[in-house]
Amino acid sequence: MAQDQTFTVTPWEVKGRVDYRKLAEQFGVKLLTEEDIKKIEKLAGDSHHLLRRGFFYAHRGLETIIERIEKGQRWALYTGRGPSADLHLGHILPWMFTKWLCDRFNVELFFEMTDDEKFLVRDLPLEVANRYAYDNALTLIALGFRPEQLHLIIDTEDIHYLYKIAVKVAKCLTLSTIKHTFGFTDSTNVGAAFFPTLQISVAFLPTELYREEAPVLIPAGIDQDPYFRLARDIADRLGYPKPCTLYCKFVPALTGEEKMSASRPETAIYVNDDDETVRRKIMNAFTGGQPTKELQRKLGGNPDICVVYRYFMAYVPDDNIVKKIYEDCRSGNLICGECKRMLYEHIVRFLHELREKREKARDIIHKYRISSKF
Amino acid sequence: MAQDQTFTVTPWEVKGRVDYRKLAEQFGVKLLTEEDIKKIEKLAGDSHHLLRRGFFYAHRGLETIIERIEKGQRWALYTGRGPSADLHLGHILPWMFTKWLCDRFNVELFFEMTDDEKFLVRDLPLEVANRYAYDNALTLIALGFRPEQLHLIIDTEDIHYLYKIAVKVAKCLTLSTIKHTFGFTDSTNVGAAFFPTLQISVAFLPTELYREEAPVLIPAGIDQDPYFRLARDIADRLGYPKPCTLYCKFVPALTGEEKMSASRPETAIYVNDDDETVRRKIMNAFTGGQPTKELQRKLGGNPDICVVYRYFMAYVPDDNIVKKIYEDCRSGNLICGECKRMLYEHIVRFLHELREKREKARDIIHKYRISSKF
Repeated sequence: MAQDQTFTVTPWEVKGRVDYRKLAEQFGVKLLTEEDIKKIEKLAGDSHHLLRRGFFYAHRGLETIIERIEKGQRWALYTGRGPSADLHLGHILPWMFTKWLCDRFNVELFFEMTDDEKFLVRDLPLEVANRYAYDNALTLIALGFRPEQLHLIIDTEDIHYLYKIAVKVAKCLTLSTIKHTFGFTDSTNVGAAFFPTLQISVAFLPTELYREEAPVLIPAGIDQDPYFRLARDIADRLGYPKPCTLYCKFVPALTGEEKMSASRPETAIYVNDDDETVRRKIMNAFTGGQPTKELQRKLGGNPDICVVYRYFMAYVPDDNIVKKIYEDCRSGNLICGECKRMLYEHIVRFLHELREKREKARDIIHKYRISSKF
Repeated sequence: MAQDQTFTVTPWEVKGRVDYRKLAEQFGVKLLTEEDIKKIEKLAGDSHHLLRRGFFYAHRGLETIIERIEKGQRWALYTGRGPSADLHLGHILPWMFTKWLCDRFNVELFFEMTDDEKFLVRDLPLEVANRYAYDNALTLIALGFRPEQLHLIIDTEDIHYLYKIAVKVAKCLTLSTIKHTFGFTDSTNVGAAFFPTLQISVAFLPTELYREEAPVLIPAGIDQDPYFRLARDIADRLGYPKPCTLYCKFVPALTGEEKMSASRPETAIYVNDDDETVRRKIMNAFTGGQPTKELQRKLGGNPDICVVYRYFMAYVPDDNIVKKIYEDCRSGNLICGECKRMLYEHIVRFLHELREKREKARDIIHKYRISSKF
């Protein structure tokens, strides 16, 4: 749990304007250096825009994974999702990067759908959370994962893969540790208190399933760090390799707040938003533009504080396009309405393709279930 | 948790001389009446010595089960074992009565082996607790259960039958409730705190698996009451029928303390004790006899405080035999050495038969696993 006078970041809440450097410091994670990024790019033989544009910006133990890549040793990817609602673009950003890692380093992704958590921590009926797990998985698959690349774990249905590991994890964690780490109290239900052991257990699962040491690299939002800090604390004691993490910043809300929110639809673009809704949301987005078209032409805008520009950074890989928008905004050549229309076109094209692939995923989702492979 | 100045009874500890009437009062359970016993005997068309001799002595909600038997409605039996060691005669006593209920009322028994609990609460390696689960199951089966009568649940292996129910149970139980009910503190590990949700979940499993309302009757030691009191508290909220319980007293230790203890081998007769060991333990047992043979002949003994007599009560169903021993002891006709030899013969005959059936159970244990049936 990180709390500051100006912002709060926990696995359940992101509030205020996050100072990412300060947050990394508070959590005790390392900032990603230029050298780190170059090393990954060299090993990958490729560059990813979320890495070179600083979306992924902090880590724990990345050097371990880099060393294993260099030595040709086994490792795996792990990330997940609390399936409580339809997906928006903020959710899938780290997954797009994770797909790139899968492809470039020929490793498998273990993906945990924590339907139990959403029932225990939120007020969502278990059946609804479970339905979202399947729904969200379609979008994940639509990002292009092949069945042999992605192992889907749905907590309430695949618990037998995790429970033996979870009891060992649980024995290392006192109620006091859990309460302190996650901000729980004696009024918290015992299921919410136990749940972190499952999220931690997936980090050790590849080592069990592969029957050889296989540390995981976890690309995730930095709000998930409390789980993985605990996992690293106890790994040695349990004879597992420490999990490594790679943390990304949040995609800002269209309205200008720090993070998109599933509970306020206007802050985010949803995978299932129709074109007109996407258009309206983007047109209403917070920008760095001047109050009038004339002032914009004269003074130029400020892309550095502009949500629309941030979306180009996040969802448009081509550096030439993004660079041109930055310069044209600064110079006053580009006015906000035009810029928003360009973003709209990029986003709807992306969403149309994604939804088409989502439909195709319905027939093959069973091939991604961990139970069809291990 | 029940604590008194003279005794303590919790799921993990029985200390001091238990006042069963006071214990029932402290736990808030009802005492079994003569009328209750007659009703069960009438419905069963048979009498069981553990019932008529007062070993089973208290209950919660027995009237519900009696009513369902009368109406021909569905119900099930549920009991279990924390597999932390070899079994002794004290462990199997309630199971013998449970087998009788299975047969007389044509109901199925759900039996939970809590290997996870023994790892989380005791210092037993998980693999060892799991091995004991299989070993203990052989003895259970040897009591004569047919595969269609007995559904064996091993927590770490059959967790997927329980977890969906467990998260619903867990959501109803705060850390505060768990701590207070089981005497846990913030230093308790989170797995031990979560475990009660699993023991409670089995009480609701028959209703899920049968897809119709099926309350359970739980024959168990009264020390298990805290779990089932909580289960009854939350059943309504979850839409499950309240579980009913039937509690038995402990079989006293051979050495005269209140309860046999797996950690002190001399207090109990183990299923695997060889004849010579059984003989030695019985010969050293605490009795109600006089200091010398001559005084015994002259004054008679006191079977009411005699552990050997208590064993006859527990393990010899024939009332004529037990009655004769009582009278011959009182009159001084029977001296302790002779009485012990008679008990020895009853016990070793029972153990030989049991062990023979245990060996046969090895080949068919898979037929009892819940996963082979549901």
